[in-house]
Amino acid sequence: MARYPFSSGKPSLIVRKVHPDNRESPLQFIENDTIGNDLFYRRNHFSYPALPQSSYWLPVNGLVHRPSIFTLDEIIKMPSKTLKVILECAGNKRHFFEPKVFGDQWEKGAMSQGYWKGVPLRNLLELAGGVKPGAKEVLIEGYDFGKQPNMNQPETFARSLPLNKALHPDTLIAYQYNNQPIPFKHGYPLRLIVPQWYAVASVKWIKQISVIDYKFNGSFQADDYVYYPKKESDAGAFRVTTINVNSSILNPLNREILDTGKHLIKGIAWTGEGAITKVEVSTDNGTNWSTAKLTVQRNQERYAWTTWSYEWNPDEKGEYTILTRAADSLQRIQPKVPFWNRKGYGYNAIDQIKVKIE
Amino acid sequence: MARYPFSSGKPSLIVRKVHPDNRESPLQFIENDTIGNDLFYRRNHFSYPALPQSSYWLPVNGLVHRPSIFTLDEIIKMPSKTLKVILECAGNKRHFFEPKVFGDQWEKGAMSQGYWKGVPLRNLLELAGGVKPGAKEVLIEGYDFGKQPNMNQPETFARSLPLNKALHPDTLIAYQYNNQPIPFKHGYPLRLIVPQWYAVASVKWIKQISVIDYKFNGSFQADDYVYYPKKESDAGAFRVTTINVNSSILNPLNREILDTGKHLIKGIAWTGEGAITKVEVSTDNGTNWSTAKLTVQRNQERYAWTTWSYEWNPDEKGEYTILTRAADSLQRIQPKVPFWNRKGYGYNAIDQIKVKIE
Repeated sequence: MARYPFSSGKPSLIVRKVHPDNRESPLQFIENDTIGNDLFYRRNHFSYPALPQSSYWLPVNGLVHRPSIFTLDEIIKMPSKTLKVILECAGNKRHFFEPKVFGDQWEKGAMSQGYWKGVPLRNLLELAGGVKPGAKEVLIEGYDFGKQPNMNQPETFARSLPLNKALHPDTLIAYQYNNQPIPFKHGYPLRLIVPQWYAVASVKWIKQISVIDYKFNGSFQADDYVYYPKKESDAGAFRVTTINVNSSILNPLNREILDTGKHLIKGIAWTGEGAITKVEVSTDNGTNWSTAKLTVQRNQERYAWTTWSYEWNPDEKGEYTILTRAADSLQRIQPKVPFWNRKGYGYNAIDQIKVKIE
Repeated sequence: MARYPFSSGKPSLIVRKVHPDNRESPLQFIENDTIGNDLFYRRNHFSYPALPQSSYWLPVNGLVHRPSIFTLDEIIKMPSKTLKVILECAGNKRHFFEPKVFGDQWEKGAMSQGYWKGVPLRNLLELAGGVKPGAKEVLIEGYDFGKQPNMNQPETFARSLPLNKALHPDTLIAYQYNNQPIPFKHGYPLRLIVPQWYAVASVKWIKQISVIDYKFNGSFQADDYVYYPKKESDAGAFRVTTINVNSSILNPLNREILDTGKHLIKGIAWTGEGAITKVEVSTDNGTNWSTAKLTVQRNQERYAWTTWSYEWNPDEKGEYTILTRAADSLQRIQPKVPFWNRKGYGYNAIDQIKVKIE
């Protein structure tokens, strides 16, 4: 009889919905700081799209001096840039809002990171003769489309960027993830990568890029992906853009039962502006705070998360509430109470778990 | 360029912990009424065990007239029985207790069902000469062992059954699941199957069976798998045995946003005694109740769950609280408030989801 391995198996994506395909990255169980394709979170509004059966080409048109069509080969041969970038769904941690909100109940795993390689969008616009006067935004359309409950009719997934963000040298038209062609489920062959913005901006399966002279009001930026601070009215609404300063405790697990003795509290911290400068940990529900050790420093990789750890030696049995609070170089700090909004975007309150020492 | 399938992919197990391996069955996304090996929930206290490298043999000893050792081949050649049986972790739905309790935060998927084929335990005891006078319990030990936080030293996973349950003709020493050898992660080559009891009784990787003349007090029935109604004392404690009457809403999802129009509310109901006789659904938070249609009747398959559905036509937009309540032939009915207990076992309150019609 064969002897079986002791292995407990590998982590796998956590299903939130199958149609469309929405799954969390099991960050609590991943040792690696770069997330592989198999564990990269999936966030889809619609079914996966059908791509053209013929060769792929990318039109760049609208308010440019020389509307152009690029083949994939042409793009791959251009000077490229590789950046380690977090993609975080704006609905990450939606589950934790109180009062609770509707929509996919993402916990801590609607985010992943790795190396995206591509061509700056600004370079493509320059190759198309440059942007004409009067241009206001760059509109990026994907191949995916469909109808959500809040829509009256089917719509293509499309998003615009203001000119300054579109022309930022790190806004990429990416064709590789972690040294491989971008996996189909994550936008093959071309995906927009907008560092520091919530990932809704990073359009997958790019179909067309157009420079426009108006403010685009597609569903995915005028209806969805809008912060609505009021439950019953749209007063005070504003659009989702930059990632908030944030941190997550990844170990121990919430509600875990532990022995007395040494435990390593571990997690990640990230921000959409500047860099993480400090992560504090409290093991007594906020009465006392200690500084965690930042275990991966981010100098060049400024769009990636920082990992941190804190050694904890509880010698008394009982229940403990553990909190973490990150701060960034722009003096932004995680709030105690999250900014509640009806659709549940941008949750970044102090992270919290409870454990029991037995 | 290749055209890609529209498929949104398959459901997969939902990881709660990797070491040891604990994962939920994604019941919300499974169409089939019999759960395949790949989606069967996993509940382990320890690492997967090493099985003997030589041939497998099963000792049956203690208070029997003719202590015996059976080979796997001998067992497979005996007259067998195949039963469709639910295995439900006693901690299923632990996540929903209020106040919250510690331990793995199982939601609705710490249960699965399918066809178990094996030999009644009573037949093996008869082949071992029958039970001697003075016998009180039958002790079943698994190959898995280790130390949990609440233990002072490593212990083998072992459970006893009272004589009447051990001798019940449907208590099986199973060797097949869904017409295949039992998968290693679910107890290969032999697993005890105790219908109607929470699955902790269904010992995996059986190492030895002993008839004993005392009340066994191993960790897994004297410390764990005990209902402790008080937070701070052990007063009123009693052991986990029979499955409670229960139901789960599997569609829609909690906090889902839906269109107006027809929706099928679907789910399962099950009980550890008698049969499910009725499932009621409320779409107005308990003010009015309607009877759901039982879509799979359970006559012969009395240890399996009943599926049910209810057609709902909300025409007004807004938020709705949907409840379900199952009753069984022993007049047991799901309570409004669950029986709170410190370790979080046997949750069976009326199931509840909230949805928003947009």
